[in-house]
Amino acid sequence: MDMEKHESAPLDAKRPRTERGRRTLRKLLDAAAIEFGEKGFHEASISTITARAGTALGSFYTYFDSKEAIFQALVRDMSEAVKLAAREALDAPAPALERERQALAAFLRFAAEHKEVYRIIDEAEFVDPDSYRQHYETTGARILERLREGARKGELRGDLEEAHAWAIMGMNVFLGLRYAVWDDGAMPPERVAALANDLLARGIARMAPQGD
Amino acid sequence: MDMEKHESAPLDAKRPRTERGRRTLRKLLDAAAIEFGEKGFHEASISTITARAGTALGSFYTYFDSKEAIFQALVRDMSEAVKLAAREALDAPAPALERERQALAAFLRFAAEHKEVYRIIDEAEFVDPDSYRQHYETTGARILERLREGARKGELRGDLEEAHAWAIMGMNVFLGLRYAVWDDGAMPPERVAALANDLLARGIARMAPQGD
Repeated sequence: MDMEKHESAPLDAKRPRTERGRRTLRKLLDAAAIEFGEKGFHEASISTITARAGTALGSFYTYFDSKEAIFQALVRDMSEAVKLAAREALDAPAPALERERQALAAFLRFAAEHKEVYRIIDEAEFVDPDSYRQHYETTGARILERLREGARKGELRGDLEEAHAWAIMGMNVFLGLRYAVWDDGAMPPERVAALANDLLARGIARMAPQGD
Repeated sequence: MDMEKHESAPLDAKRPRTERGRRTLRKLLDAAAIEFGEKGFHEASISTITARAGTALGSFYTYFDSKEAIFQALVRDMSEAVKLAAREALDAPAPALERERQALAAFLRFAAEHKEVYRIIDEAEFVDPDSYRQHYETTGARILERLREGARKGELRGDLEEAHAWAIMGMNVFLGLRYAVWDDGAMPPERVAALANDLLARGIARMAPQGD
């Protein structure tokens, strides 16, 4: 797993002051992603995380007080990584619906590469409920912001509200679970994203034929 | 919590042969829903479940071998209860989109009354992954069946496939999390269901004005 491109330090970790410290913290978080992803929170251990990271146990405690603390930092780190994966896809200006398509395709590619992201964020519901809620609240708020921008530009309906953003988020999360995490390659990200985008564009009702 | 109307025995429990046995099994499952819903799987205990149910410890072992066994039976029982809640709303014949609206409204009312259903099904991802997957696969298959029926009747688009059903399921699950479980009464089930249904009917793109 490579999340090196995502350099921001997680909120709750003691912040490293040196480049070497940042690398160590990154190694610990990447090792924690594998450990929690494979074993789940209860079976995971700090000593296995440091062994996977190739760091001393003392380094762990430089940044984290407990297994709970690194789990919390990891959930927030992954939430940030999900955000950045979508944002990279949104760099170029594009019409509002096209942006939603790009954001979903980027998320599906990210989930396929980092399948552990589902298990870890889902387990936060039990281990760290505040981070769980915060992940979905901030993701939903980002989608709503995009919808409102599209409405301002006259591309989307003017009456879109928070519930529309949550509907889209739920759609994206479940399509990721089904086609990126469970079924590797059954349906390529681009096709899933195009299909979902078409649903957003025109709904599922049968269209009346032209001139009907 | 009252799931008395749902009488079918869970798949993995030893089946009770008497009416009294059925009542005891129902009491154990209802008590387990409260216990697992409040404490989560790891903190829950068999003795508290039997205390809540008002049954002897021996009765528990008549039906279940372990905490894992009653958890699995409970997940399948809840999955069935979710299905029945939607099905009751679908008794009368109605156009395909109207059926989706009714099914979502019924699910939202069910989730508001049984908030523990999210916690328990979500925890199955870790405690009993097969039941977790089965819950979503069967729910998605039911939605797809309704979509295909709507397409056959000419009310829905003819090109709907499994991914559309998963998109709708994700939408419904996240709207339930946000408006039925987290925010009691912020937005009534009927309004959430109408808004989601409108998204399904026509999408979120701005409509060209008549004659445009």
